[in-house]
Amino acid sequence: MKMKIENLKDLFVHTLKDIYFAERQIVTSLPKMIKTAHSKELAKALEGHLEETKKQVVRLEKVFKLVGAKAEGEECPAIEGILDEAEELMIEINDPQTRDAAMIGAAQAVEHYEITRYGTLIAWGELLGFNDAVKLLAATSKEEHNADSKLTKIAESKLNKEAA
Amino acid sequence: MKMKIENLKDLFVHTLKDIYFAERQIVTSLPKMIKTAHSKELAKALEGHLEETKKQVVRLEKVFKLVGAKAEGEECPAIEGILDEAEELMIEINDPQTRDAAMIGAAQAVEHYEITRYGTLIAWGELLGFNDAVKLLAATSKEEHNADSKLTKIAESKLNKEAA
Repeated sequence: MKMKIENLKDLFVHTLKDIYFAERQIVTSLPKMIKTAHSKELAKALEGHLEETKKQVVRLEKVFKLVGAKAEGEECPAIEGILDEAEELMIEINDPQTRDAAMIGAAQAVEHYEITRYGTLIAWGELLGFNDAVKLLAATSKEEHNADSKLTKIAESKLNKEAA
Repeated sequence: MKMKIENLKDLFVHTLKDIYFAERQIVTSLPKMIKTAHSKELAKALEGHLEETKKQVVRLEKVFKLVGAKAEGEECPAIEGILDEAEELMIEINDPQTRDAAMIGAAQAVEHYEITRYGTLIAWGELLGFNDAVKLLAATSKEEHNADSKLTKIAESKLNKEAA
């Protein structure tokens, strides 16, 4: 941890840096997942989410500006752990349907990490009176919820059945 | 990764080992969080969740038995990352209200990790016809959702306001 956290504003900025780091790691990881996906439906959903994630990075930069903090990442071991697990599974599993099922599970773990962090940021942002920042964070949070639901639908409709 | 994953059953067992490792790590981490909590309300909620988590570990052992697999953990870098971040914040933050807010955020990240893993296990378990195992997993999933909601309530009602 680089910055000293003395109050809720500091904690808000720290968490913003954590999710900024996480979003940029996700932008790096998604192309590998897209390339590895066997199902075209899954690849397409991940491609859509990659474009969305790039926009979320820009949106976070606006949030930093709104709260008067420098846009920089702070290493986030949680997202690194989630993405490492995903990559390990992608390499280890040979059966394409089973690998797709594992990738969906991993992508949903990523979404849930983001959902919880944005939820926390929104709650703190409201208390701190960062109303414009909260609006941007809420837009991203909604997208993450939608991405999670989309993955559930893909899993239920086709992939998991094939893998079973 | 120790076991070879060739099909959805293998992936199910792998993920079961991942969450079994995670739940046991949480049992180790929660007492430190309880000791560090400033708010009595937060400490009480975490104590309740510690007892619940211990029961969830036993429930997972039943699931292993039901699906004919050995109850053993497999290292889960995701939960390690989430818990490491939580511990770092607990040490670094001196202000008790801000520290409590950080701990709630961390505990919710833990809950969301569990929610996503149990959600995936339930979906795969249903496809694999593991009906009795799914019932046990669904009971835990419900508890994790409730624990997350309880933390949101504590955060909204008191702690975050004090920290702000």
